[in-house]
Order: sequence, then C-alpha cells, then structure tokens
Amino acid sequence: MFQMTLETEALIDRALSEDLSIGDPTTDILIPPDMQGKASFVAKENGVLAGLDIALAVFQRFDRSFVVNTNVRDGECLSSGDLIATVNGKMNPLLKAERTSLNFIRRLSGIATETAAYVREVDGYDVRIVDTRKTTPGLRALEKYAVRVGGGYNHRQNLGDGILIKDNHIAALRDLGMNLGDVVRKANSEKSHTINVEVEVEDLAQVEEALDAGAKILLLDNMAPEDMAIAVRMSEGRAVTEASGNITLRTVRAAAASGVDIISVGALTHSAKDLDISLDFAS
Amino acid sequence: MFQMTLETEALIDRALSEDLSIGDPTTDILIPPDMQGKASFVAKENGVLAGLDIALAVFQRFDRSFVVNTNVRDGECLSSGDLIATVNGKMNPLLKAERTSLNFIRRLSGIATETAAYVREVDGYDVRIVDTRKTTPGLRALEKYAVRVGGGYNHRQNLGDGILIKDNHIAALRDLGMNLGDVVRKANSEKSHTINVEVEVEDLAQVEEALDAGAKILLLDNMAPEDMAIAVRMSEGRAVTEASGNITLRTVRAAAASGVDIISVGALTHSAKDLDISLDFAS
Amino acid sequence: MFQMTLETEALIDRALSEDLSIGDPTTDILIPPDMQGKASFVAKENGVLAGLDIALAVFQRFDRSFVVNTNVRDGECLSSGDLIATVNGKMNPLLKAERTSLNFIRRLSGIATETAAYVREVDGYDVRIVDTRKTTPGLRALEKYAVRVGGGYNHRQNLGDGILIKDNHIAALRDLGMNLGDVVRKANSEKSHTINVEVEVEDLAQVEEALDAGAKILLLDNMAPEDMAIAVRMSEGRAVTEASGNITLRTVRAAAASGVDIISVGALTHSAKDLDISLDFAS
Amino acid sequence: MFQMTLETEALIDRALSEDLSIGDPTTDILIPPDMQGKASFVAKENGVLAGLDIALAVFQRFDRSFVVNTNVRDGECLSSGDLIATVNGKMNPLLKAERTSLNFIRRLSGIATETAAYVREVDGYDVRIVDTRKTTPGLRALEKYAVRVGGGYNHRQNLGDGILIKDNHIAALRDLGMNLGDVVRKANSEKSHTINVEVEVEDLAQVEEALDAGAKILLLDNMAPEDMAIAVRMSEGRAVTEASGNITLRTVRAAAASGVDIISVGALTHSAKDLDISLDFAS
Amino acid sequence: MFQMTLETEALIDRALSEDLSIGDPTTDILIPPDMQGKASFVAKENGVLAGLDIALAVFQRFDRSFVVNTNVRDGECLSSGDLIATVNGKMNPLLKAERTSLNFIRRLSGIATETAAYVREVDGYDVRIVDTRKTTPGLRALEKYAVRVGGGYNHRQNLGDGILIKDNHIAALRDLGMNLGDVVRKANSEKSHTINVEVEVEDLAQVEEALDAGAKILLLDNMAPEDMAIAVRMSEGRAVTEASGNITLRTVRAAAASGVDIISVGALTHSAKDLDISLDFAS
Amino acid sequence: MFQMTLETEALIDRALSEDLSIGDPTTDILIPPDMQGKASFVAKENGVLAGLDIALAVFQRFDRSFVVNTNVRDGECLSSGDLIATVNGKMNPLLKAERTSLNFIRRLSGIATETAAYVREVDGYDVRIVDTRKTTPGLRALEKYAVRVGGGYNHRQNLGDGILIKDNHIAALRDLGMNLGDVVRKANSEKSHTINVEVEVEDLAQVEEALDAGAKILLLDNMAPEDMAIAVRMSEGRAVTEASGNITLRTVRAAAASGVDIISVGALTHSAKDLDISLDFAS
Repeated sequence: MFQMTLETEALIDRALSEDLSIGDPTTDILIPPDMQGKASFVAKENGVLAGLDIALAVFQRFDRSFVVNTNVRDGECLSSGDLIATVNGKMNPLLKAERTSLNFIRRLSGIATETAAYVREVDGYDVRIVDTRKTTPGLRALEKYAVRVGGGYNHRQNLGDGILIKDNHIAALRDLGMNLGDVVRKANSEKSHTINVEVEVEDLAQVEEALDAGAKILLLDNMAPEDMAIAVRMSEGRAVTEASGNITLRTVRAAAASGVDIISVGALTHSAKDLDISLDFAS
Repeated sequence: MFQMTLETEALIDRALSEDLSIGDPTTDILIPPDMQGKASFVAKENGVLAGLDIALAVFQRFDRSFVVNTNVRDGECLSSGDLIATVNGKMNPLLKAERTSLNFIRRLSGIATETAAYVREVDGYDVRIVDTRKTTPGLRALEKYAVRVGGGYNHRQNLGDGILIKDNHIAALRDLGMNLGDVVRKANSEKSHTINVEVEVEDLAQVEEALDAGAKILLLDNMAPEDMAIAVRMSEGRAVTEASGNITLRTVRAAAASGVDIISVGALTHSAKDLDISLDFAS
Repeated sequence: MFQMTLETEALIDRALSEDLSIGDPTTDILIPPDMQGKASFVAKENGVLAGLDIALAVFQRFDRSFVVNTNVRDGECLSSGDLIATVNGKMNPLLKAERTSLNFIRRLSGIATETAAYVREVDGYDVRIVDTRKTTPGLRALEKYAVRVGGGYNHRQNLGDGILIKDNHIAALRDLGMNLGDVVRKANSEKSHTINVEVEVEDLAQVEEALDAGAKILLLDNMAPEDMAIAVRMSEGRAVTEASGNITLRTVRAAAASGVDIISVGALTHSAKDLDISLDFAS
Repeated sequence: MFQMTLETEALIDRALSEDLSIGDPTTDILIPPDMQGKASFVAKENGVLAGLDIALAVFQRFDRSFVVNTNVRDGECLSSGDLIATVNGKMNPLLKAERTSLNFIRRLSGIATETAAYVREVDGYDVRIVDTRKTTPGLRALEKYAVRVGGGYNHRQNLGDGILIKDNHIAALRDLGMNLGDVVRKANSEKSHTINVEVEVEDLAQVEEALDAGAKILLLDNMAPEDMAIAVRMSEGRAVTEASGNITLRTVRAAAASGVDIISVGALTHSAKDLDISLDFAS
Repeated sequence: MFQMTLETEALIDRALSEDLSIGDPTTDILIPPDMQGKASFVAKENGVLAGLDIALAVFQRFDRSFVVNTNVRDGECLSSGDLIATVNGKMNPLLKAERTSLNFIRRLSGIATETAAYVREVDGYDVRIVDTRKTTPGLRALEKYAVRVGGGYNHRQNLGDGILIKDNHIAALRDLGMNLGDVVRKANSEKSHTINVEVEVEDLAQVEEALDAGAKILLLDNMAPEDMAIAVRMSEGRAVTEASGNITLRTVRAAAASGVDIISVGALTHSAKDLDISLDFAS
Repeated sequence: MFQMTLETEALIDRALSEDLSIGDPTTDILIPPDMQGKASFVAKENGVLAGLDIALAVFQRFDRSFVVNTNVRDGECLSSGDLIATVNGKMNPLLKAERTSLNFIRRLSGIATETAAYVREVDGYDVRIVDTRKTTPGLRALEKYAVRVGGGYNHRQNLGDGILIKDNHIAALRDLGMNLGDVVRKANSEKSHTINVEVEVEDLAQVEEALDAGAKILLLDNMAPEDMAIAVRMSEGRAVTEASGNITLRTVRAAAASGVDIISVGALTHSAKDLDISLDFAS
C-alpha cells in the first residue's frame, strides 16, 4: 500500500491544475452539475497494478464526496478486462479528473509490469532486481514505489543514502594523483557510519584494488558475464556485487547466472511503456 | 528554442531537491570544492535532440557560475557519438547536477525522436501528427514542447483550449434524452467564440449526425482506414478530420492514406523510451 | 455554483494570511475562545450575488467547525436588506475571518452586478456581453466566474485558448513585409485545430482583407456603429463579429444595434465597484 | 519608490502564469523569436502614477534582458498623452507580458488617483486621508502603497498592528455583561505596549464613555459632522479622532471641517477605477 | 490554546518532509502496516508545557486517523513523570512522526519554562517580562506563543507593529544633522496613528531629550538599576519604560526593583534549552 | 563552505517575510532611501564561527546590490571583539535585514561552538562526536552543517539514510513474537544494500544477541562506561559502537575512554545557546 505523502498530494494538485487551469468547458456546458455517475477502472491488457491509491486520491483531492470501491490491490496481476476499482459520485467532476487519474495509474502500472518481467526472468536465482536514479523529474518516489510493487528493490533514493563512487569520481581524482584504492579508503574513513561505500569497477584488476581497499559493494559496470562470475568469487565474504549497464530482458538472466547479488536496470523507469488501463463510465 | 517559464524553473528545483535533499556525500567527501571540470553531453544513439536548454538550465539553477557551449540545437538530428554541448565549471557541482540534467534531456529527446519517426512515416501526406493529454503528471508543457521539436503538433494543452465531446459525454447525455446532434448543437451555442467543437464519432452514421449538427472537427475513433476515407469525403468543406485510437508506427501510414487532416498518437508521450545521452567528464 | 479549485483555496489562504499574519490582538484579548456567535451576510444595496461559496469557504478554511446556511444563490438578485446566508460557530474566529470573506463577496458581486447592467441594456438583441483579460492580478478565474454569474460570457481565459491577432502584432509584421492577409493566413495554417483565429480590424478595408484571408472572428476596434453595421453585413456567413473599445453603459446599446455577435467590455472587471454587503453579528 | 518584496515577486509570477500557463500561440506563431521591439507606457487620461516599478518588474521577471527607461516617477501627475517609460528588448516576450504589466499599473494608478482626489478635496485642513482593510485579496501591500503614493496614509496593514474595537466586539461583550468602558479598559491593560487602543463609537455618550476609559483613538462611525465637531472638542488632549463610514468625495470636506484628525475612506481601494494607461509598440 | 494557522501547518509539513523525504526503511521493513499502537507524551523533567496542540497536529497531518487524548494543557506545570497526552492509531505512522512531534513540543516547552522562571523571579513587582525579535528563523509565531504560555508578553511580532528607534537609527541620523529630539518628533509626526514611538536611550540626558520630544516608550539600554530608577521617575505620566540588554535570571529582579514597566529578555527565545519530554510506546 | 540550496534560500525568504511582512515604518520614516551605510559583524564572545555565508545571503536576497567582505571563515575561532565581515550598501535595507541575518549566524555559531567544546573534551581519543535528529523544525540541514563546522560528524540526515532499530521497534515486535535477533535479521535481509543496520541495545546480553544476528552498528543506550568498554571488546571486528543517551560535557570524556567509535549528543542542536555576535553600523 502506498503511504500518501504531502509531496505526492502536491504533485497531484499540480497535475490537476496542469489539465484544468482554465476550466473544462466541454463538461461544464454539457453535464448538469448534479448528474450522478460511476467510473470503473478496467485493465485493457495484462500486467501488474501499481498506483491505484494515487489514482483514487486524484478524484478525492478534486471533490471530497466521491465514494470508491477497490477490487484489486497494488502488486496483483491484471488480465485484460479485469475490473480494478470504481468511483461513484457526480458525473461532472468524474469527467474532469479522468485523464489526470489515468496518467498516474497507467505509468506506475507500466513500471511495475516491466519490473515484474525482469523479476520473472531471473526466477530461481538469489538476486535482486533494483532500479536506478534514472527517474522522471518530480516522480521519483512514485516510480521507486512502482518498482517495489513489481517485486524489485530500490537503489539509492537520492544522492545521500549511500556512497557510490563512479567512474567520473575516480577519473577526476586520478588527475589529483589518487588511485582507486586511495579513493575507496578516503570515502571509508569519512563517510557516515550508517551508509556503505559502493564503487564502480570495470575490470578484474579494479575489482581486486577495490576489495583490497575495503569497498563493501562493487558495481560491475558493463562486464562480460564470465568476468562477473570471477568477480563474484573474488568478492565472496568481502563485498556485495551489483551488475549494471544496459541490462535488458534478453541479457538479465545471463547476468543473474554469474552469481551477482544485485542487478540494476535503468530501463525499469526510463523506458517502461504505460500499461493500458481505461475508465469506463456509466450514469 | 524553449522559452523558460517560472513553472519549469520550479520543476527543475523540485527535481534537484529530489536528488539532493540530504546532500551528496560521495562528491563532498572526494572532490575538492575548487577543482575545475568539464562535462560534455554526448549522443549514444541516433535521434532528435530536445530539451537541451532545460538540461543546461539545471546546471545554472544549481550553480550560477557555469559556462556552457552548445554544438547542436533542439530539433536537429543526432548521430551516436555526436558532441551536443559542454558545461565548464567546478567539478563538485557538475557531478551533483549530472543525473537530474540527464533525466530531462533523455526523456524529452526520446519523445522528439519518437515523434519524428511518426512524422517520417507519413511523409508525402498532408497530415499532422499530434499528441494527446496522456502526458506525465507535472511535465505536460515540456513533453508537448518535445513533440513540436520532433515535427509534431499539439492537441489541447489542457481541457480549456478546445471543446472535445468524447464518448463518455455522449453516453451520459443519451441517458438524459439527448442525441449526438443535440449535444453538438448545445456545445456550439454555448462555447466561447475562440474555440471549436470537436466530437468523437465511432461510425459513419455518427459522422453524418455530427456534421449535420455543425461539428467543426471530427475525431474518428478507432475506425477502419476505409471508413475513415469515407468520413473524410463526407466532411469535405464542412469539418476537419482526426484519426485516433491506438495508432502505431505500423498503422500510421494507412491512417494517413485515408486523407484525414490530423492523426493523434498517445504513444508519443506515454510510451516513448529515453534517448541515450550521457555526460562525459574531464577535469 | 462555483467549483472550488486548489488555486482558489491557495488564494483564500494568502488572503487570510495577509490580514492575520501577526494575529488579531483585539479579538484575542476581548473575546473568550469558546463564546458562540452567528454572522449574517446582508445586502446593503441592490445587485446580483456572486462569490457566496468563496466567502463561506473563507470561514471554513479558517476553522473547519463552522456551520453555514444559505438563503440566496449566486446569480440571484439582491435587494437592500436581503439576508444572504448565515455562519454559526465560535465568535472569535468569526470576527477574525470577517473582513477577508467580505472582500471576496463584495468584489465579485460588484462585477456580477455591473455585468448584469450591461446585459439588461442590450435586452432584445442577440448579442453576448463578454469580458477581457483586464482582470485583477491573481483573481482572473474568480472575476471571470463573476461575469458568467452576471449573465455575461468569457473571452479568452489566458493567451492560449484562442488566437487573437492585435494591432501590435499586425504592426510588427508589417515591418517585416507582411500584410494583414499574410498574417491571418500564417496564423490559420499553423494554429492548433481546436482554436480559432480572431483578428483586430480598424476599418472596412481591413475587414475585407481579413475576411478574404480566412479570419473566422473579427474584432471591430473602436468603430462607429454605422461602420460596424456594414462590417456585420460583410461578415455574414463568413465570420463572427465582436465590438470592442471603451464600450460603456451609454454606448453599449448602439453597439448591439449594429448587429454584432459579441460586445467585449473591459470595465466589467477593471472598473466595477464593490457591491455593499455586510456581516451582521449576533452572539 | 516601491521596495520590491519576495511576496510581490511571487504575485507577479502568479499573474504571469495566470495569463500564459498554456502559452501564447498568437505571438509564437507570428513573431520571430529574435525580432526586436520597443514598448512605451503612455497615459490616456489625467491622473497620478503608481506601480511603475512593478509594471517594469513584470517584464524583467519574464525575460531578464529587457532594458527600461523611465520618464515619470510614482506619485507624479500624468496628463493624457504623457510618455511614462519605455521597455526595449525582444518583441515576442514584450507582447506576452503586456497585459499582465498593464493590469498592475492601471489598478495602482487608479487608486493613487482616487486618493489624490480626496486629499485635494480636504486641502487646507490638517487631516489625514487613510485607507481601510477593504482591499483586493492578495494585493493589500500594493494597494496600500498606492494610497501612500496618492498622498494618503495607511490604517492597519493587518489585524495585528493596532487594536480596533469595533461594534461587533462591543455587542458581543455586552452580552457577557461588559459595558464600553470595561471593554476599553480590558484592551488597554492587556495590549502590547507598542500599539494603541482605538474604539468605534456611534454617539456622544459613547465618546464620553470611551474617553473616560482611556481610549487613545476614537473611530466616529457614521456621525453627523456637527456631532463629530463636538466629539473632537471632547477628545482634545485625550484622544485622536477618526471619521469613518461611507465617506465620499462629496462628503469628505464637511467631515474634515469638523476638525477630526483622520478620515478613513474604503472607496480608495474598493471602488477605484483603473487609470487608462496603454502600451504603444514600435519595432 | 494555540490557534492553528496555515503557516504553522506548512511548517509542520516541511518538518515532516525534512525527516521523511526518502522514507523510513526501518519502520517500513519491520512494522506491519496494520499493527496498532499507543504513544504517550511523558515529562522527563519539571517545567511548563507549551506546544501540545502542535505536537498532536504533527500526527494528525501525517495520518488523519489518529485519536488523541490530553491530560494537561499548555501553560500548566509538569513534574517529571507526568503523563501529558496519548496518541492512538497505527504503530507504523506513530513511529515515523515521533521525532518531528517531539522536536516541536520540547523546544516550545523549553521556552515556556524559561519564561516562567523569569516571571517567578520578579514576583511581587508590577512588571511584564517580554520577548524580543531574537527568534529562530521560521518559528517566530510559535516561539512568541510559548512566551505567552509561560506568563510573558510579546514585544513586536515583526518590524511593522510598533516604531522602535534604535541606536543605529539615531547614529545614522546624527550624521545627517538630526539630534535625538528631531528623530523622535519626525517619527511621531509620520507614524500611523495605531502604533506608538519607542526610543532606545543610553543615559539620563537622552531620557530627558526623548521625553521632551514626545516619546511614549523608552527602551533603557544596559542602564544601571539606579539610573533606571531615576529614568522611571522622570517618565512618570509621560512614558512607559522598558529595561533591556543582557538581562539574566540573576539580574532581572534588580531591574524590576527599579520600577520599570517592562523587561525584555532575548534569552527567552535565543538560549532556552529543550524541555525533556519523551514518547513512550505500547502496542 | 556552505553550499547554498534552494531550500535554504526559501527559508531565508520566509524568515525575512516573518520580520517584514507589514513593513518597517521606523526605518522607512527615518532613513532616506539613498543614504549609504556599512554594517560590521563583530564577535561579542569567544566561539566558533558558522553560518556566515547564510547571514550574508540574507542581505543579498533582500537587496542584490550589497557588497560584502569577509575576514573570517566558517570553522575558525572567534575572540570577543573580532571583526568577522562587513556589508556595504544602502542604510535603509541594511537596517531592515539586520535582525534576520543575526538570528541565523548567532544560532549556527552557537551550535558550532558547542560542538567544538565536545570535540575538544575528547581530544586524544579516536572517536567521533555526532549529532542526532533532535533539530529545530525547518533548520535541520543548517544545524547539521554547523555541527560539521564545529568538528563533529552527522548521524542520519533523515529516516531514510540508515536503518536504526530503536527500543520502540524492538518492543513492538516482541509483542508479535520476534526477539532482538529476529528483528536484526529481518532488517538485514530486506534493507537496501547501500545502508547499514544499527540497533539500540541496553545491556550486554542484547549486545551479544545483536552481534550474533549480524548488526553492523550498536547504539549503546545509557550504558555505564565500564559496560560500554566490555561491549566495545565484544564488538571488535564485528560492529561499530556508538554511545548515546544524555551525554554531557562532564560525561563525554568517560564515554570516549570506553573505546566507542562514536558518541552522539542531542544537546549539540537542542540545547546550544546563541553565540553573541552583533552588527555594528556606520554611515
């Protein structure tokens, strides 16, 4: 279940305003203010539901008198044709809030569905599918929630809840005379005790160097599966391993087979398609 | 060129905050505050650029002292490997703003690229590719800008800049005893003089009824191309025609061949993948 | 009935804060927190009511426990002395919210009353009285609502829901070598299909030129009634006509007699006086 | 000179957004982005200028590259035809910001002009014309500034910078067994030392009672001029006197002749008409 | 009782966001969403309670379904071990909102407790303990409320609800050729009639000069008690006197003995320690 | 150096508004708008400077034309009388922004000074002094910055950048049949890989249980130093140890002597007094 936050309420408000800032003359001219109606969320293709509470909250932010009923919960599978939930109330505001509500639930369900596909693909391996920070500006919390709903895990929420030394940090510090081990040691000695040091490595020599310097997490960047398997063995008992870099549904199982603990997939959020969900009306 | 608005600046600020609200310990521990650096936006696949001004504005909102140089402009084609622009300044804030900046330019270029593919596909026909209101909550203005950059046109920005009588309106009013013609006439008589009445029709009988009632735009919903061709002939000199409903790259050319004036494609915004653009650093 | 929006709630909040940001020592020192009271909105002059829901919402934003009863609805006529509505609850917050609430209802009723005067003045003619964009900064949606309540119609809500080519556009483009017809044709060919092209014309030659170029709406700027009558005849079946330019209660009937479809009146919003409405208290 | 505040900047931003939230297709279609232009603020009737800095700030918030020149300053008299100021820069944003800028300067100059008329009317008397809290929601600081520009003074900015015991307070407390003197004494004993107690009185008996209780300011509500003259004499050396209640340009001089120190006029802000100022363009 | 304002609600929201912007994984991993719990506010040291309504509002902003019971009210004395109030509801959000709620009530009770200590110290004298503008940025209204709860009074809420001519004003104007009397007279003649002129004086010569010029309040800055006593006698019937300048619990009684009306103490807000209050949980 | 963020700018704006929302009549009446002045930040007691950039930013947010010069940097020691920085510009806005600016720098320097005292007290031990989440609502980022300036380190910024299992979590889960080890194991298995599990323990039995379950950080709550020393030895090579619970300047050295890695001190932020810094003016 999604825990509504003040930021999400504000996002819903902005989205409503974006669609309605100068009114809805179609609905206001045609639909009598007191006419009652019912709108049903219906799946138009198979997938995993995510964002229902947000989609329903859109209606309730817009007009507090709506009554909602839910049939399915976030994380459950949808088959085309499934009735997800209904909203009852005045037809006029129902029609006005329709698009904004659908824009949320379709995107989030699309991400959950994509995530679930990756999770299914690595079935049988003890590995986590995790997201990245490649999220839509303004929607990070929602999109990371959708990843969890789809069975994935979250990497950093923002830059502050983990140390991740990337190639750009390493290259910059090399210009200042520090090698990879120096960088890892510096991070380890100054970081807060509540977070870990992860370091991006590109080959087995870097794996060795990072492990020796005390890195607790290795991000194996674009490595071949066979090299990843070696890195995993080298890291055993010393560090957690994460495969990363243009992982697709076709390549994810091979990555899992290498024995890594974690596979991060940017496409979960940056390239998922909307799941087709519609609102069917009855008055 | 994108005209920066106050809403876009606020969106950039929220996106930066979303990524940086509790700081970036990796960068703060490792990168000396005065170290200088240079970051280059580079295309990693072919496509159409959109959102460069916004991506650059992210850096400048974060630290006003950056200097930028641009090689390519929004709307121009990118080949994999092309240098798009560079940002010069302090390495520390460069690294902090990287992801937020990329999240904007990658999504918007993805939409422009998708739009351009549709536009190319209908080459030779006098038809517009237009978007829908199926946009990401909070990003509508940017995503509609990316559609224009890709050679498309915009349908309504929000519910207020056009009358669009949809199936749900028609069904609700049928329950009150109004037929399609009544609905169109009511809208025509009460609307503001600055906007037009568009009406969604599903078959040729409805086309006839809508035209007779004075509709100026017909949305031909999920019609077969041959029916659309008939509807186009019926509408000649009386109404503009728009094809709509699950149009894909495979079906768009057939839709165009029917002679419609406009083809609206939700997928331009709701299912475009990010275009792969990265930031390469040098110190 | 006014549909409360999130923007209007925010405006109410700012207005309350503007009056109460450092407290109300008079009321806090004198009125016991639990004392009950009743406040009645009473008309002190004749007019048309507008903004009652907003005035009542001010009390309810301030203290959610108020109970309200309404006697009259927006759009109904008020005679001096009429009881409009009552608010029951704690006397202390009743006194604090009084002025903010009255500031809304008085202004909006003033606009509705002014609009109704214009509408009455053109009684018998098939013409619309419409407003302009000359509204108070921050209150546009409310003021345009008040115009509708008074029997008027709205011109553009903002710059995006219609094309209006004004003298300044025409003059600027003349410097670039385009004549009026060129300008109208360019707008017609590039505009969204959901909005129309209106063009400001100053004499009959321009009327001819605009019609020939395909303008669908003519704004007849400061024309003599007899010229307007000719312009109306020229436009028949080709364009809608709008009279504009310093129309007053004295001149509006002559404008209507010319046969124009629309008369726009800036004074509806920029120069209406408050309608005198007061709150009478009883404990 | 108006001291720009953060609240005023936010108000300008909201006003721009209100007019431009979905773009300005007229200007964007027609006016090339790089075309240069010049806009001149010109008075179209006589009056007192107020709000020029705000009107100019509208342009500069919208596009930081405008260059402005001013001919007249706030508080100076305008004759019809006077050139007030010019703004130079790109024609496209000049046209977009025009209406928002004018909406500010016209309203504020209208208030200053109305105030100046009252001040002129009491010429020769040692009396202040002051405003009330009957201001437009969201514009109080600007409207009170315009009153000062017109030669008036400000009554309370909000409920916290003065004690004003009104009829409603007195009536409520009478129900609790307190007479006017009790009320004044209670306020005097508990108020902050930095503010004074003003009390609304309706007849000479109340004047006596309020003075005896230690009121430092008397608001003479709707009293006849001859009674006001008596009240003034009774108050001499003990309290300041303020005439209030439906004062008009016709009655203000008689009020001043009664010898009161202050005359408060709600109409300064709630019923002033816009001053006619326009922007003339040249490219 | 604290009257909740929109600004305070916004402050609570920001404080919650500050603590929870990237979630609470500890609680979300461990505590089932439907588990019920009870949290009790308990005093861990003696003091005066302030801010209970705000502490409870934190829970209710976060999750509207909490039920609260209160045992003690703001302004009442607490002994270590006292049960103050309980909050019943879901354990998961109870744990998430705990720290934010405590941060409010502990600080405000600390200020009320400190204020009460000063008030007790001057027991028997007819003197007010008042605060200053040395408050925490963003918390002024709350901190000034806590001072009142502790038995103190408020000096100016902001710069606008009183004239206070400080040494810096006097020094600046001396450079322009004005002496203290000139300054006081200028302020008296131009100020709003609802506020008084207070002036900072450093010795008895300045006391004389200020009184002669008509100052109604004297701020006796860092004067010896014996000089203050003389200043009080000089001011009798002419001005209110305020002692100010590094007053501590050790020096406040001597200041009171001088006969001043008011003693202002910056330490009430700028140096009070939190009162130790904790939340005890039971499920 | 403090990296200014958008949130800090917004906080400065709110603080300025809090002090100036209804103007500063003292300064506006007395100080000519064009008079120039200079204000010098001067230490009035010994301590550690923190927040200078923020104090200076207050002036520059208020009026962009100020020129500043700095003598001392954040983190440097101040002796009473030291000149810290000067601000040159118009006297009128200098006087208006004075108090808001001082309220920031005094509080932050107070926290840095308090932190430095703790750091000095544990001199010679390899131990970190860290803060807690007991910060002022709205000021967390600033107060945690001041702790770093004073030589301390930060514990969690918010609830999301570390797992900290507190007594309340443990007690709640005990009711559900889980022992301490179960709780730690559950957290370890579900947490993000970038953050660590810290667990609050109260005695040596819990230390053993937590270590066995794989806790990486132990919070030793209110333990006697001798028990802490044993816990430290038990944890060697297995977990980091943190002493916590009412640590004061008198007890901190004994805690450090126990060999713990970290000592967390709530008093750094919840009970630090302002450092006395003033602004001296010259015109």
